[in-house]
Amino acid sequence: MLEDKNQERTSLEKLGEFGLIDHLTKEFTMQHESTLKGIGDDAAILDFKDKKTVLSTDLLIEGVHFDLSYVPLKHLGYKAVVVNLSDIYAMNATATQITVSIAVSNRFPLEAIEELYAGIALACKKFKVDLIGGDTTSSTTGLLISVTAIGEANEKNIAFRKGTKPNDLLVVTGDLGGAYMGLQVLEREKEVFKVNPNSQPDLEPYSYIVERQLKPEARKDISGLLQVLGVQPTSMIDISDGLSSEILHLCKNSEVGCNLFEEKIPLDPTVISACEEFNIDSTMVALSGGEDYELLFTVDQKDFEKIKGNPNLSIIGHMTDASEGAHLITRANTKIPLTAQGWNSFKSE
Amino acid sequence: MLEDKNQERTSLEKLGEFGLIDHLTKEFTMQHESTLKGIGDDAAILDFKDKKTVLSTDLLIEGVHFDLSYVPLKHLGYKAVVVNLSDIYAMNATATQITVSIAVSNRFPLEAIEELYAGIALACKKFKVDLIGGDTTSSTTGLLISVTAIGEANEKNIAFRKGTKPNDLLVVTGDLGGAYMGLQVLEREKEVFKVNPNSQPDLEPYSYIVERQLKPEARKDISGLLQVLGVQPTSMIDISDGLSSEILHLCKNSEVGCNLFEEKIPLDPTVISACEEFNIDSTMVALSGGEDYELLFTVDQKDFEKIKGNPNLSIIGHMTDASEGAHLITRANTKIPLTAQGWNSFKSE
Repeated sequence: MLEDKNQERTSLEKLGEFGLIDHLTKEFTMQHESTLKGIGDDAAILDFKDKKTVLSTDLLIEGVHFDLSYVPLKHLGYKAVVVNLSDIYAMNATATQITVSIAVSNRFPLEAIEELYAGIALACKKFKVDLIGGDTTSSTTGLLISVTAIGEANEKNIAFRKGTKPNDLLVVTGDLGGAYMGLQVLEREKEVFKVNPNSQPDLEPYSYIVERQLKPEARKDISGLLQVLGVQPTSMIDISDGLSSEILHLCKNSEVGCNLFEEKIPLDPTVISACEEFNIDSTMVALSGGEDYELLFTVDQKDFEKIKGNPNLSIIGHMTDASEGAHLITRANTKIPLTAQGWNSFKSE
Repeated sequence: MLEDKNQERTSLEKLGEFGLIDHLTKEFTMQHESTLKGIGDDAAILDFKDKKTVLSTDLLIEGVHFDLSYVPLKHLGYKAVVVNLSDIYAMNATATQITVSIAVSNRFPLEAIEELYAGIALACKKFKVDLIGGDTTSSTTGLLISVTAIGEANEKNIAFRKGTKPNDLLVVTGDLGGAYMGLQVLEREKEVFKVNPNSQPDLEPYSYIVERQLKPEARKDISGLLQVLGVQPTSMIDISDGLSSEILHLCKNSEVGCNLFEEKIPLDPTVISACEEFNIDSTMVALSGGEDYELLFTVDQKDFEKIKGNPNLSIIGHMTDASEGAHLITRANTKIPLTAQGWNSFKSE
């Protein structure tokens, strides 16, 4: 899209910094009672009354976290918000506000930034969060997005990485590995496109996994679901780096071990078939793929009846004494130590 | 410093993302009762009880906002925090927490990032704020810092850009133009250094203004001072883009005009002498220089006795009807319209 020289382009320089902020944010409306003052002053004002404030922040950098050759800007804006909201949901909290700061090089016309904000607006609407502030500046190269997500929770409901104990059940929402396999498909199509720019990729068979990669959805629903079920998670984290890495975070913070059962790991049929096509082990993909933005949490054994059979939840293992370590129990009933193979942005490739 | 190839350097890749965050933040302690949980989970937890939450965020980009050829990294870390805290103080609020996210290219060794965090730590200590979160990632080029500052205030004390009315007095803290003249000195020394790398600059006569540029201090003290004086500002903003631009923000938001008196603008003697040396008009520097991080606010006429003669405060003008516009009244008693010549990061130079 950015390469289309024929479309009308408005330079950012013409608008200036204040003009750009006004232009991009004028359509955003405030939905939360807790938002006393949003964009337009030196700072935003929030009021969480007797609830606690939950806050998380993330940076997304072009060439490190995303590749604009196959990520549409609208999807990118949506995803930038969603990955931050996921951190709030991972505290078993409700997301209420975000700030979005962007740095853009002058290779981006206003219309491109509008696309990005259309995605941000869509996420704000879908997840019911208010855009309350941010910063807009130029960059010497590429696009950069910094999002801070703010939420609220009753203190008794907050779930930390620390808190689970041996014999607690390990539960995951949704299914895993889709985002990683979607990325494999997109990377392959990019290579095909390089060789033959006229090729028309048929992504239809991969629509679920491509969507998992390009337009992930954070689990806004789980906090409410658990309240309805009367379940307080003993620990919780979101799956951004892969199941294995997140389990190890829970184990380390809670000083416990874990047995994860391979046969219990929820996989969508599309993921399984894509794994076959790419000749990749689907368990490996679930363990190390990352970017699924599902929630991983633990519950007391006594809550088993409340969660079993729920279509949103899969019980995939249980916690053990720390001395037992963290293992995958394979279908062949062998025990393999879990290792963190999550994503490290400093690793050279 | 970054060019010194002889010193021991630790690559960021070796530490990885989690290792780096742990390493950089392990010395930070939490000082505020409102910080229930800082770094180490998916999100931080804060508790402002019956106070309102105030929140602001900024991006600082290498090559756009700072030049590492003359800005030491420790100063940069300090300044990155200070400019954000200034936005909280500009709401007449107390800053309590910050998050800091950085993106660094692998041209930076660990030791450089440690320097940056030493400056961040110094600012946290001096301004009594807790570092509660952030993100650390690689960048394809240069250094980028994103800071979110969080604060608290009683609702009745919060001062917005909107709220002042005709006849209110316009007040500024400290003195103006120093940061801009400090930048002129540093830019000149950079050019001298390019021609003769062995030259030893004597910055001693310029120490005040160079410090105003490299190590600005936000006005943490003003909110408390005004409370002691029993003064509630009717509007407030911090001076990041220059006096002129900030006055116009107050006028626009409050729908008023303003008369600013040239002779009342507070200038340090070092600024005046540097302006003479560089042949720049000192009033112009105060109006458009920016980066002074002083506070500009308005008070009701009845508060005149409470603030007059206070060494921290200068009454520099008064607000008028919107129809009168915003003007500088020169020493020669001519009226010149104020124009926003604040800094626009999208402007090509």
